[in-house]
Amino acid sequence: MASITADALGTLEKTFATSGRSEKVAIIGAGNWGSAAAMIIGRNCKKLDIFDDNVTVWCLEEKVEGGNLTDIINTTHVNVKYLPDHKLPENVRAEPDLVKSVAGATLLVFVLPHQFLARTCQTLKGHLEEGVKAISLIKGIDFDDSGPQLMTSVIKRELGIEACALSGANIANEIAAGKFCESTIGYEHKETGALFFALFNEPNFRISLVQGTAAVQVFGAIKNIVALGAGFCDALDMGNNTKAALMRIGLIEMYRFATQYFKDVDTMTMVESCGMADLITTCMGGRNRRVAEAYGRSRLEKGDAHRSWEDLEAEMLNGQKLQGTGAAKEVFAILTRDKLLDRFPFLVTLYKIAFEGKPIEDVVNIPEEHFLPSVVTGAKTTVTSA
Amino acid sequence: MASITADALGTLEKTFATSGRSEKVAIIGAGNWGSAAAMIIGRNCKKLDIFDDNVTVWCLEEKVEGGNLTDIINTTHVNVKYLPDHKLPENVRAEPDLVKSVAGATLLVFVLPHQFLARTCQTLKGHLEEGVKAISLIKGIDFDDSGPQLMTSVIKRELGIEACALSGANIANEIAAGKFCESTIGYEHKETGALFFALFNEPNFRISLVQGTAAVQVFGAIKNIVALGAGFCDALDMGNNTKAALMRIGLIEMYRFATQYFKDVDTMTMVESCGMADLITTCMGGRNRRVAEAYGRSRLEKGDAHRSWEDLEAEMLNGQKLQGTGAAKEVFAILTRDKLLDRFPFLVTLYKIAFEGKPIEDVVNIPEEHFLPSVVTGAKTTVTSA
Repeated sequence: MASITADALGTLEKTFATSGRSEKVAIIGAGNWGSAAAMIIGRNCKKLDIFDDNVTVWCLEEKVEGGNLTDIINTTHVNVKYLPDHKLPENVRAEPDLVKSVAGATLLVFVLPHQFLARTCQTLKGHLEEGVKAISLIKGIDFDDSGPQLMTSVIKRELGIEACALSGANIANEIAAGKFCESTIGYEHKETGALFFALFNEPNFRISLVQGTAAVQVFGAIKNIVALGAGFCDALDMGNNTKAALMRIGLIEMYRFATQYFKDVDTMTMVESCGMADLITTCMGGRNRRVAEAYGRSRLEKGDAHRSWEDLEAEMLNGQKLQGTGAAKEVFAILTRDKLLDRFPFLVTLYKIAFEGKPIEDVVNIPEEHFLPSVVTGAKTTVTSA
Repeated sequence: MASITADALGTLEKTFATSGRSEKVAIIGAGNWGSAAAMIIGRNCKKLDIFDDNVTVWCLEEKVEGGNLTDIINTTHVNVKYLPDHKLPENVRAEPDLVKSVAGATLLVFVLPHQFLARTCQTLKGHLEEGVKAISLIKGIDFDDSGPQLMTSVIKRELGIEACALSGANIANEIAAGKFCESTIGYEHKETGALFFALFNEPNFRISLVQGTAAVQVFGAIKNIVALGAGFCDALDMGNNTKAALMRIGLIEMYRFATQYFKDVDTMTMVESCGMADLITTCMGGRNRRVAEAYGRSRLEKGDAHRSWEDLEAEMLNGQKLQGTGAAKEVFAILTRDKLLDRFPFLVTLYKIAFEGKPIEDVVNIPEEHFLPSVVTGAKTTVTSA
């Protein structure tokens, strides 16, 4: 991966040296993750010649103890609301006006709740520099009548610009605290990939590049369904070997789903941070796993009188939402529509346990179809064609 | 993978139908893992026409409460010494004489401590059926002056026969109890792979096939070094995201090591049970992780007065041995000899933390070389060539 950057960054540096034009960054979103990203981006823009020092972050204005959040950020360099324990670099400036925030920007970093993306893009339309490029740090994908929708597709559709995607085993507060982790950037053109590699890569935030943006985004959504399976497995006290097997089977179906609905999926994306690593942490410690374990135990103990997902979500997540149950429904609906249920027997099993009363124990009853040649794509094809 | 078996099993069944010759199995070794394997093998031999019902397991004779272990097994169908809580199928017979145990056998399953393998093969020499094929269930690899040595290579060298390898996220007692898990068989010729697939595959012991036997065996050894890193990470209370990143980085170097020393390594082996899944369980719960965490905490608390590996091993493992520390030394020695230290910066870092006083905190100081193009092979090459 680094060879891309070695080559392409060389080109970027030469271009910069001859044109003197540096890339100017605007971050769209100043929540927890946006603020953590702003710390990295701010440092790298200060350090590397190819970037303009000044970074703008669009921040939806809020009142915090009588003051404007943007004023507080620009005075104290702390996002007191969403990342209170860390200082932003002084070259990062908060801007409450969305259109003003992208003035002169050549690189846009989208990091806001996915439901606001389309609308935000519409506001930006007509106000962007020529040749501007984007990256999405938004978790998850949408589903509509035409199937699964990538955040990068929304950006491209609304703005007609190139968009990369970043995803990995990342927690904003840990990144802000400088804990070591990795992340993956999927790109369409390697020069753009290299540019965003340079913008994000740090010794404690290691970036790998992969060709294609779909798998990076799809994995981040489907892993939450697999985490339900990990939770059911924990409810059954089945131990790490069984859980590791389910995670592996889940990863294969995540990959199969990506290849089913999108072109240009690099097999190796499975062993990148956005694949294997993110799946591991999600299945070991995440909220979807945790609530699924509680749901499973309730089913095992109380049978039909078990507690509901909504109930457990309200009690356990302190206002946060489960993502795995919603994703399981969306995926089941789309697979049903497309007559593809037998290609994804594990994801279908998880849906049926979660919503159709299928026994929790069936989490390890992996239907034969998962392993059969007719439903084996991608990973398994490589093996079978050997 | 199943397509191999679909095709090749069809051929096997046809051959059986015309020749009437069925495959006869001898299991060499009746320890904990050998006995659990005998349960699966016994059931499948009973069930499938292509196998002779009668399975022989060579059992080193021991006295148990005044009786012979083989007599007890053949009377009670319980290996009271090594798998006391489970019954072996009645078509499995224990045989104390090694040469007699292989009489008429066409398939040999080697499942004994690796240090006895060469000697055992030498005893068998000249007593085998023509065309006999083997599979090794032995964990680990050896190192000698010429480099890393596979168990399958020892079998081939000593007996001149084809040998497959089986490895996965498997614990003998869990398998015996019927807990769901998966395993991977690496093969050279797909017909042989199909045969062993049929011998081992069950609904709760799912087999995947991969071309090539080296990675399956190498992964099983090098994962124990990576588990030291997971333990150091836990000693530092770094959390699941960092640990998942280290596991991922470790998997890449495991793969790199396999491709460095052996040909015919299928990239997809990384996401098989013998790769990703076995690594996960080893880094989450295994003894190498556990002792490495204790070692790390002792270093962090007591500095130079910290406890030794030997000390902790004796105290914590109840007679069992650490595998990761030995493997780390062997791998470091071979990489030093071959001037390859900079290709494996993470494995080298783990060795130096374990044996050269490098700070525990350096476990997340992944040297840049891990990510550089010149030391990027296999997995990363796929990405870089995109």
